[in-house]
Amino acid sequence: MNTFGRIFRLTIFGESHGAGVGVTIDGCPAGIDLSVDDFLADLERRKPGAKGTTPRKEDDLPEIISGHFRGHTTGAPITILFRNKNVRSGDYDNLVKTPRPGHSDFVAWKRFGGFNDHRGGGHFSGRLTLALVAAGVLAKKLIAGVKIQAKLIEAGGKKDIEKALSEALDKGDSVGGLVECVANNIPLGWGEPFFDPVESLISHLVFAVPAIKGVEFGSGFHAAAMKGSDHNDPILDDTGKTATNNAGGITGGLTNGNQLVYRVAVKPTSSIGVKQKTYSIESQKVETLEVKGRHDACIALRVPVVIEAVTAIALADLKMMFERTKT
Amino acid sequence: MNTFGRIFRLTIFGESHGAGVGVTIDGCPAGIDLSVDDFLADLERRKPGAKGTTPRKEDDLPEIISGHFRGHTTGAPITILFRNKNVRSGDYDNLVKTPRPGHSDFVAWKRFGGFNDHRGGGHFSGRLTLALVAAGVLAKKLIAGVKIQAKLIEAGGKKDIEKALSEALDKGDSVGGLVECVANNIPLGWGEPFFDPVESLISHLVFAVPAIKGVEFGSGFHAAAMKGSDHNDPILDDTGKTATNNAGGITGGLTNGNQLVYRVAVKPTSSIGVKQKTYSIESQKVETLEVKGRHDACIALRVPVVIEAVTAIALADLKMMFERTKT
Amino acid sequence: MNTFGRIFRLTIFGESHGAGVGVTIDGCPAGIDLSVDDFLADLERRKPGAKGTTPRKEDDLPEIISGHFRGHTTGAPITILFRNKNVRSGDYDNLVKTPRPGHSDFVAWKRFGGFNDHRGGGHFSGRLTLALVAAGVLAKKLIAGVKIQAKLIEAGGKKDIEKALSEALDKGDSVGGLVECVANNIPLGWGEPFFDPVESLISHLVFAVPAIKGVEFGSGFHAAAMKGSDHNDPILDDTGKTATNNAGGITGGLTNGNQLVYRVAVKPTSSIGVKQKTYSIESQKVETLEVKGRHDACIALRVPVVIEAVTAIALADLKMMFERTKT
Amino acid sequence: MNTFGRIFRLTIFGESHGAGVGVTIDGCPAGIDLSVDDFLADLERRKPGAKGTTPRKEDDLPEIISGHFRGHTTGAPITILFRNKNVRSGDYDNLVKTPRPGHSDFVAWKRFGGFNDHRGGGHFSGRLTLALVAAGVLAKKLIAGVKIQAKLIEAGGKKDIEKALSEALDKGDSVGGLVECVANNIPLGWGEPFFDPVESLISHLVFAVPAIKGVEFGSGFHAAAMKGSDHNDPILDDTGKTATNNAGGITGGLTNGNQLVYRVAVKPTSSIGVKQKTYSIESQKVETLEVKGRHDACIALRVPVVIEAVTAIALADLKMMFERTKT
Repeated sequence: MNTFGRIFRLTIFGESHGAGVGVTIDGCPAGIDLSVDDFLADLERRKPGAKGTTPRKEDDLPEIISGHFRGHTTGAPITILFRNKNVRSGDYDNLVKTPRPGHSDFVAWKRFGGFNDHRGGGHFSGRLTLALVAAGVLAKKLIAGVKIQAKLIEAGGKKDIEKALSEALDKGDSVGGLVECVANNIPLGWGEPFFDPVESLISHLVFAVPAIKGVEFGSGFHAAAMKGSDHNDPILDDTGKTATNNAGGITGGLTNGNQLVYRVAVKPTSSIGVKQKTYSIESQKVETLEVKGRHDACIALRVPVVIEAVTAIALADLKMMFERTKT
Repeated sequence: MNTFGRIFRLTIFGESHGAGVGVTIDGCPAGIDLSVDDFLADLERRKPGAKGTTPRKEDDLPEIISGHFRGHTTGAPITILFRNKNVRSGDYDNLVKTPRPGHSDFVAWKRFGGFNDHRGGGHFSGRLTLALVAAGVLAKKLIAGVKIQAKLIEAGGKKDIEKALSEALDKGDSVGGLVECVANNIPLGWGEPFFDPVESLISHLVFAVPAIKGVEFGSGFHAAAMKGSDHNDPILDDTGKTATNNAGGITGGLTNGNQLVYRVAVKPTSSIGVKQKTYSIESQKVETLEVKGRHDACIALRVPVVIEAVTAIALADLKMMFERTKT
Repeated sequence: MNTFGRIFRLTIFGESHGAGVGVTIDGCPAGIDLSVDDFLADLERRKPGAKGTTPRKEDDLPEIISGHFRGHTTGAPITILFRNKNVRSGDYDNLVKTPRPGHSDFVAWKRFGGFNDHRGGGHFSGRLTLALVAAGVLAKKLIAGVKIQAKLIEAGGKKDIEKALSEALDKGDSVGGLVECVANNIPLGWGEPFFDPVESLISHLVFAVPAIKGVEFGSGFHAAAMKGSDHNDPILDDTGKTATNNAGGITGGLTNGNQLVYRVAVKPTSSIGVKQKTYSIESQKVETLEVKGRHDACIALRVPVVIEAVTAIALADLKMMFERTKT
Repeated sequence: MNTFGRIFRLTIFGESHGAGVGVTIDGCPAGIDLSVDDFLADLERRKPGAKGTTPRKEDDLPEIISGHFRGHTTGAPITILFRNKNVRSGDYDNLVKTPRPGHSDFVAWKRFGGFNDHRGGGHFSGRLTLALVAAGVLAKKLIAGVKIQAKLIEAGGKKDIEKALSEALDKGDSVGGLVECVANNIPLGWGEPFFDPVESLISHLVFAVPAIKGVEFGSGFHAAAMKGSDHNDPILDDTGKTATNNAGGITGGLTNGNQLVYRVAVKPTSSIGVKQKTYSIESQKVETLEVKGRHDACIALRVPVVIEAVTAIALADLKMMFERTKT
């Protein structure tokens, strides 16, 4: 459903082409400095506009509706609203009956009996990640000291990302990408076994981000081919520092005092200029679809700031859980 | 924490070398046929004993403590308890001060101020997966018709799993493995965006299973290197059947009417016969550790039935959520 | 915290004198007819303006931000926002330092270290009940067939409510009241033992409504003085109809097929024209306070529609839980 | 459902005449001293045996299954199991078809399609409060310093409780009672608006206790007849001490630094020796029922220790939530 977290809790709402998208953040302590300006840098990183991203432009200025007074959080829930402005719903009119492959169009139409807001994917749109990024800004403040950084390390299977993008753009096609996230200075011991180890909370949030197909921590899928004598990370001192970091900074579901490292696989943008086959609900036949509208050639370009946000959100909740365990 | 699920809810408890491990299953409808015999086949698959698995043997007979009357579920919470019997705690005595690399020993000791039950990993032990398997048996009944099958498809990077095991056993070492899970006959539309898409629930549970380092759905990490025109799965008919299945049976976080496919990477067993370096809490120096006790050369061998269980658990909860949306 | 419910879930936000108040409703099925007009009748009943209520007037027109498309719910979360317009915050300026007896001013200031939005009670204001009433409108649609009616049956200890109000108004004072809620046509069997019997969900929500001091079901406090032979309700037929209704329509925490009946005690409005003593945070002495601003002489007058709303909200969630138990 | 709490969380299970009843307590910090002996005093207070209580005797010795090591909590979930021993199920055989008025027999049978364990009320039995009392013992440790005391202050409408009991026993009848609970030394500021004020959590738990018909805080139902100038509690100093305590120690849903006071109404025991009318499912007619078995003439006698327990449980969770808000 649309709420996540135990203490630091988010409730998300909105659609791509409706009135707007937003998030209510509950459980945030009072007295945290907060202004609209604090959101701008991360929102800017999520924005389209760079090569390989959609030309749709929104101001994406957050309105802080509640939980905020005289420049600080108040302890009450914080609702942040982004109004939709630059909407061209007409682009999506034919998609009701001709669902785009790789998109939620078909399943959403079936699941909600045709009542879903299909425009631009509606509630399934990547635009919802605006709300995650906004919540991430606040989460980062709550785990001050922890330094999170995500970046695109491959696109279309290439380290030369520019080249992969050019090739895709030339053909009206899209490419996937690999995003790596590292976080430093996380204290040892965050995580809540049995069901809420660090990996579980992060992956839960990661897969709420549209287009993610996989997640791996530390040695990840490579671990499946390793020997225990190579994989085990020898502990070196009382801080828990290890000689290697195959664990990716997590042991037994708890942060272990080393760098948190994980990677996510982002699929190629489903909306492509290339003509595709799909089943038409109207004609009840497979037809050729040409998707119009504005799209990203590599949605993975815009994913790193979202991945940072979900990492911060998961860690903020785990930190608060951790605090309560002090006896 | 130790409860998971919205309607079909599990609460897990217990330790490797304490009185036992168990699970309380809440939200199960009344009138489901259930007997101790129903658990035996899946419990048998999880048992050690085969080549490459630990020689520790437990009867592992479940006791149904509650929620069960005259051969059926009653609608009340079902508690299933497995008593620990074959416990040799002495094996673990030196591990309090000399934490095993790759295990929770060190982080648990730090997190819980030395009050954790360290014997055999305590609450962090893989023995807790007994409870998942038991809950999975019930979950499978709730989604009757859906057919789930997981198997080990690689060990130590090899398709020849026997060979990989022999090599590891010869050296007192261990190897990782790759487990693939497929599920057929899932109706279209299960999943609860924004925060509870199918992938989120499954991955959340998957990472609660000790030793998992990665999860990927459908095309998974390969998607990062693909083009959109290759990755998109053309929809062929009104059931949502697609020509390819890069999506792994999930679109927009909802089941799409095709086969659910995902894979998990299992790290090599951390307990190995090979000598290792680790930090001694007692001497405050790095020392050489020789792990005694009974261990698995390839824990991945015992993972498939656990992966089936968590898949069934996630799907059972999503099915119940799905049912309530009918208008 | 600010989210309630298992399937039909509300998240509430906002302040009395901030940008607005609102609610996000999650778990609502798609395809429910909904328009702004649907809210007006209940909102009108909550409005001030009648004798004994505050002269502050707000249009209180709901804006449906999300989850709504072409006159129906979409299955996505529904956010309803009420902008604050007619705000005279200046009235509350002195209350920061001179907390009003009976209000949250003092405790909120202490709890949130002075960061709370104190204006008009901020997040503690009765204005938040707007959000409950809005959610109640939708909840009533989900339990179509069930007929809920709440009314004020006593004010200031008198059945002649008009008279009690006149006396209070004449003295610049306020009076409490007793509200009774009945609901007919609830199917037998709603309720989720052990922790979520009908009374638990209703009372949980009832006490979230400011000014409620007590709740009793059926025979209520009178039951404490009764004999079992008088209190037991003889069952008359297969529908569960009982000869008497001391149970108030609930047995064993489940609806029993009879009329649901409960009463809530509403304290007198804390804001009164009469001068009062209170501790001044500024002077650190007890001082005399004269509360200005616009207030209700009997807040209980505006409570019935809120009580209907919370009843509907609790029942909607329990109905959805009930539906999933069909085997 | 059968789990309650946000951080300090209980999951309850079991039946009156099944294998046993128990509770899993999650979220308890490590390092709390705990032994079986710690439970005995409160369990003794809940036991039958005194005048007016059922002669059924159970040892009711708790077995600590998990989360406990070398005399302390470990940080892992604590499961406490009470085996049922002294069970005479035969007493209840005729109740399947002739449901007892005032009991869950009829509604449970309808709700669960006849699959419920009807013996002694099954999961609906007052015996489940054993689990609450056990959890209360731990909760009291977590809020050390807070002093909770509940007692029966009236039975059958009389302050002379002995007399009320004698009258009821003489006639094979039962009487209700009024229980008052006070708690001292609660720090100011516990409570989580909007949905989790102190009254909401306490009343939620209180109504999970069988036989409770009403709850009122401070002035309670009397408040409905009061004037604001009488009801408001003047604040006297910086600790929040008030001259009167109509608020019952809670303002705006938060503890206000004064004594917490609330009362609960307990209905007369439904099982009585007096002959009653009820609908027979078998004959499909109203018949005369004579309840055999062992029962309490005044169940309210055994309620105080349960009320203390639920108060402690609610406060322990609120304390933990409070701790996380420190900025």
